[in-house]
Amino acid sequence: MQYRRLGSSGLQLSALSFGAWVTFGGQVGRTTARKLIAAAWDNGINFFDNAEGYGHGVAESLMGDVIADLRLPRDGYCVSSKVFFGANEDPRPTQRGLSRKHVTDACHAALRRLRVDYLDLFYCHRPDPDTPVEETVWAMDALVRQGKVLYWGTSEWSVGQIREAHKVARQNHLVAPTMEQPQYNLLHRERVELEYAPLYAEYGMGATVWSPLASGLLTGKYNDGIPEQSRLADPAISWLRGFVIGDPEQRRIERAREFTSLAREFGVAPAPLAIAWCLRNPHVSSVILGATSVDQLLQNLQALEVLETLEEACWHKIRVVAN
Amino acid sequence: MQYRRLGSSGLQLSALSFGAWVTFGGQVGRTTARKLIAAAWDNGINFFDNAEGYGHGVAESLMGDVIADLRLPRDGYCVSSKVFFGANEDPRPTQRGLSRKHVTDACHAALRRLRVDYLDLFYCHRPDPDTPVEETVWAMDALVRQGKVLYWGTSEWSVGQIREAHKVARQNHLVAPTMEQPQYNLLHRERVELEYAPLYAEYGMGATVWSPLASGLLTGKYNDGIPEQSRLADPAISWLRGFVIGDPEQRRIERAREFTSLAREFGVAPAPLAIAWCLRNPHVSSVILGATSVDQLLQNLQALEVLETLEEACWHKIRVVAN
Amino acid sequence: MQYRRLGSSGLQLSALSFGAWVTFGGQVGRTTARKLIAAAWDNGINFFDNAEGYGHGVAESLMGDVIADLRLPRDGYCVSSKVFFGANEDPRPTQRGLSRKHVTDACHAALRRLRVDYLDLFYCHRPDPDTPVEETVWAMDALVRQGKVLYWGTSEWSVGQIREAHKVARQNHLVAPTMEQPQYNLLHRERVELEYAPLYAEYGMGATVWSPLASGLLTGKYNDGIPEQSRLADPAISWLRGFVIGDPEQRRIERAREFTSLAREFGVAPAPLAIAWCLRNPHVSSVILGATSVDQLLQNLQALEVLETLEEACWHKIRVVAN
Amino acid sequence: MQYRRLGSSGLQLSALSFGAWVTFGGQVGRTTARKLIAAAWDNGINFFDNAEGYGHGVAESLMGDVIADLRLPRDGYCVSSKVFFGANEDPRPTQRGLSRKHVTDACHAALRRLRVDYLDLFYCHRPDPDTPVEETVWAMDALVRQGKVLYWGTSEWSVGQIREAHKVARQNHLVAPTMEQPQYNLLHRERVELEYAPLYAEYGMGATVWSPLASGLLTGKYNDGIPEQSRLADPAISWLRGFVIGDPEQRRIERAREFTSLAREFGVAPAPLAIAWCLRNPHVSSVILGATSVDQLLQNLQALEVLETLEEACWHKIRVVAN
Repeated sequence: MQYRRLGSSGLQLSALSFGAWVTFGGQVGRTTARKLIAAAWDNGINFFDNAEGYGHGVAESLMGDVIADLRLPRDGYCVSSKVFFGANEDPRPTQRGLSRKHVTDACHAALRRLRVDYLDLFYCHRPDPDTPVEETVWAMDALVRQGKVLYWGTSEWSVGQIREAHKVARQNHLVAPTMEQPQYNLLHRERVELEYAPLYAEYGMGATVWSPLASGLLTGKYNDGIPEQSRLADPAISWLRGFVIGDPEQRRIERAREFTSLAREFGVAPAPLAIAWCLRNPHVSSVILGATSVDQLLQNLQALEVLETLEEACWHKIRVVAN
Repeated sequence: MQYRRLGSSGLQLSALSFGAWVTFGGQVGRTTARKLIAAAWDNGINFFDNAEGYGHGVAESLMGDVIADLRLPRDGYCVSSKVFFGANEDPRPTQRGLSRKHVTDACHAALRRLRVDYLDLFYCHRPDPDTPVEETVWAMDALVRQGKVLYWGTSEWSVGQIREAHKVARQNHLVAPTMEQPQYNLLHRERVELEYAPLYAEYGMGATVWSPLASGLLTGKYNDGIPEQSRLADPAISWLRGFVIGDPEQRRIERAREFTSLAREFGVAPAPLAIAWCLRNPHVSSVILGATSVDQLLQNLQALEVLETLEEACWHKIRVVAN
Repeated sequence: MQYRRLGSSGLQLSALSFGAWVTFGGQVGRTTARKLIAAAWDNGINFFDNAEGYGHGVAESLMGDVIADLRLPRDGYCVSSKVFFGANEDPRPTQRGLSRKHVTDACHAALRRLRVDYLDLFYCHRPDPDTPVEETVWAMDALVRQGKVLYWGTSEWSVGQIREAHKVARQNHLVAPTMEQPQYNLLHRERVELEYAPLYAEYGMGATVWSPLASGLLTGKYNDGIPEQSRLADPAISWLRGFVIGDPEQRRIERAREFTSLAREFGVAPAPLAIAWCLRNPHVSSVILGATSVDQLLQNLQALEVLETLEEACWHKIRVVAN
Repeated sequence: MQYRRLGSSGLQLSALSFGAWVTFGGQVGRTTARKLIAAAWDNGINFFDNAEGYGHGVAESLMGDVIADLRLPRDGYCVSSKVFFGANEDPRPTQRGLSRKHVTDACHAALRRLRVDYLDLFYCHRPDPDTPVEETVWAMDALVRQGKVLYWGTSEWSVGQIREAHKVARQNHLVAPTMEQPQYNLLHRERVELEYAPLYAEYGMGATVWSPLASGLLTGKYNDGIPEQSRLADPAISWLRGFVIGDPEQRRIERAREFTSLAREFGVAPAPLAIAWCLRNPHVSSVILGATSVDQLLQNLQALEVLETLEEACWHKIRVVAN
């Protein structure tokens, strides 16, 4: 495994990490979850990503149970949670948004579900236009000073919102955010590469990126339509379908076909190639992998080998798809 | 139920909330208290207001017992307490005013009585001329940083006192107050509408208002004198009588008669009309309702319907009473 | 009982308070200690003063046991401790002076001995030339923020040292000291009346004063030599003798004789007169009384009556002795 | 025993202290460890130095067990730990360097191993180029404010790194470092005497120095080669051999021979003479002694006598060796 600093911080995360998004508590039950986390850990993954919004807490409970069961050493791994998920779908108005109450309650609930004394990373899962950034920064600072959170960050915030958080922190001597969790893959590059460009040097911001396979699109599995066993066929998460396929003018399926064709040409599987492509960006601290089987996870982990062995000319060809 | 932000903070309170003032531990015993809080919760109320000064702690103990008994989810509701009640009636000099000792002891006692780990809202129940504002702000900041209080505020403080609290907080990087709890109703408008006017924008101050019915006067129940069963006839709280009826030049009973007459004309009950009138002020975060029976509470909750359905012309007519 | 604010703070202390100095754990055993504290409490005293240096902790353990036994309500009384007593007599070098370690350890030990969760008042018992004031202020701030101490202060510090503590606190946004505990009586006035003069207004400093009877000298009991039963005859505390009698040029015994003669003229006992004299200084927040018997304590408490009833002309005559 | 302030702080450490480096958990087992610590304590040593890196935690566990067994009074002694040891040899990437996670986890682990509620001293064992100094200072500040650490410091940091830590602390009102733990002996003087020279006055920095005997070289035991029983012959710590003997141009063995020859001339043992030489530097707060037997420790403690009795002319002669 390769390890990278979380931005300019001293925390060393595995370049590939394991996320519970969509899978845990859905397709993946306890037996598979245990095998997945064991395989991840055995292969050097030390960062397990989660959120209160993943399966309404079920993903965190499952991960907490499995990690406890596997007796992973607490100081050897990092676990994250996230508060608020953008849509105000929680039936309790007090548990929407990034208010001091929600941030605090969500932290405590995640600690219980994940069975830990502190969260290594705690993200504001989306910006909340209905809470002043100042309130959220003060709340995060209190959690860090109480020892319940080590590093806090944001997920899919705009540059302006991130700057505002840093400004509030500096003015009031509060703990500033350390990392962002943006979507990043061959078909979704603008935020990580352009919008956030000044932030890496300015604040030493780290990026833990999600959806390196564009929700599976880059594996080529939707090149010829949506198979019955795939996540996209699950009516419970039908919203995902639109998210993955996108608008026709984005040509997402066509570009995925071109990409998988290139992968075949290079003699590597498309998934590890797409993941390795993300790792070529030095501002990426960790690429979060989801998986429903150990085989799938192991294949994705081949990205590290691809990264080291693929010739520069091949990467050059991929640029066409990515642009 | 409608939910509103507590000022510019991210906390979403029900526009109508339930307060224990006067009733809990007085006319209202445990059985009724349980029914009232259950009905409030079932109707979407998520803020339960209390104070150490309500029944010398009995109101808080009763509410704490009932909420625990009903197993309300801690992250779904907000509960408040208040320290100091203006009059120095506590036999213990150490428990008068807003000293660091009283603020701290009162918080701990309220946590015990309400059976919670933290207070969502904690108010300085009146200004205390015998304690520097600075001392109180430092004490509140310590409680917030220790996780025992989420939001702190004031009740019936002057603009100058509120500004002073913000100044102290800003200069020393302490947590500033978020909300005020002023009296507000058709017959008592000056402080909320004029005196506090600059504070809403300047500090994002929220207002949780009390006595929307002017202690019952606006229901019309005192239009023809004080009935034997009413709170005002209770000799234990005879001071309330002067407070409600006021001086002759205020014409409070006369204006209440005019108001109830208008309500009859509009075909709505006076109580929900008076409450809805408060809600029309966008600076009001929540209107605190007291009740001695579930029927009374349910009637008051009709204010939300009145607010949505009453024609503008009717509100226009009410202005005459309110001015 | 009369209650006074601790300087400009909001804490209301009884104008007369009860101290364990010299007596507890020495002449006074558990039975008498219990009677004394019960009598003090019954007469409205709400501040019990102590120090780690009084009887090497025995005075605190005794007071803690007795207060627990009497079941005094924690929020109704204030208890103090003090760290470091000037002379480096502790056999453990780590427990001398006002280092962060000694301040922290001493607080924890006092909490245990006094059987409380927090100290209401915690004093630096003497200035420590071997510890930077900055270190002590940071240590006290940490204890206050952790909720283990409510108010911290100094005892017999110079004006310059007190100013330095305030400067450090202001520059680093730390909790500043609230009170001083100086010696004050008719024969020892300079520090309280002249040296500290600017501090009362500048910092709102409160003064809890000790030795109002000049170690008994002002009762007249040493007018004709030292009786066998008195504290001064106890060889274990022989240093006290020099402290009380002083140098010949101070004319302490002569002035005590003049004072007791005046008391006889006014028809009041000398002890309550001397104590009442201290209370006439508005900068005195509380006068600490020591006592070895309930009778003695009750006589001293008559100071409040003397204060209210003695004619101005009498106080005028006392000036001669005091100057 | 002589006691010295830790720099300008108020903490009084024994001028000679006892360190677990190399010996504990290696040559020294539990029985000897108990005898060593008992002898150290009986001779006035009040500072026991340790680190997570000494025997991968075994040295701390052993010391914690023995101190608990001996029932040393917690407020009478000081114990230290250190986080990170320069080489990135920990198999867990999260436990390398001075990240907030490692600093926090290491503190908690040391508290458990040493069986204490707080560390008196906590050092950053080496500078970490892969963590911003700012992150480490914030992490240390949080531990101090939580009461888990009293004084924090550095070990073998450059002047620039120490200055940076103070700058970050001052700008953000955080607790600044108090002490350094550099190597210091007759053959290794530059850092303590020249490089750090401005820091003692500027920040009141204290120095607790290690290896006063240059890993035994100054005892003369390697004058004629490495004996079989010595630490240097232990293959498990063979790296130490190069460290001790050094490069030929340093003439370390030759200078050690000259030094031991001088000691013979003065009629004192070389070890206490070398230790006493360190104590002559007023910027040295404590010299840390390692020992594998009580006899060896007692001999080393004679340094205090040597310091007091050796004539100035003798010290003058030693200068030649030291330069």
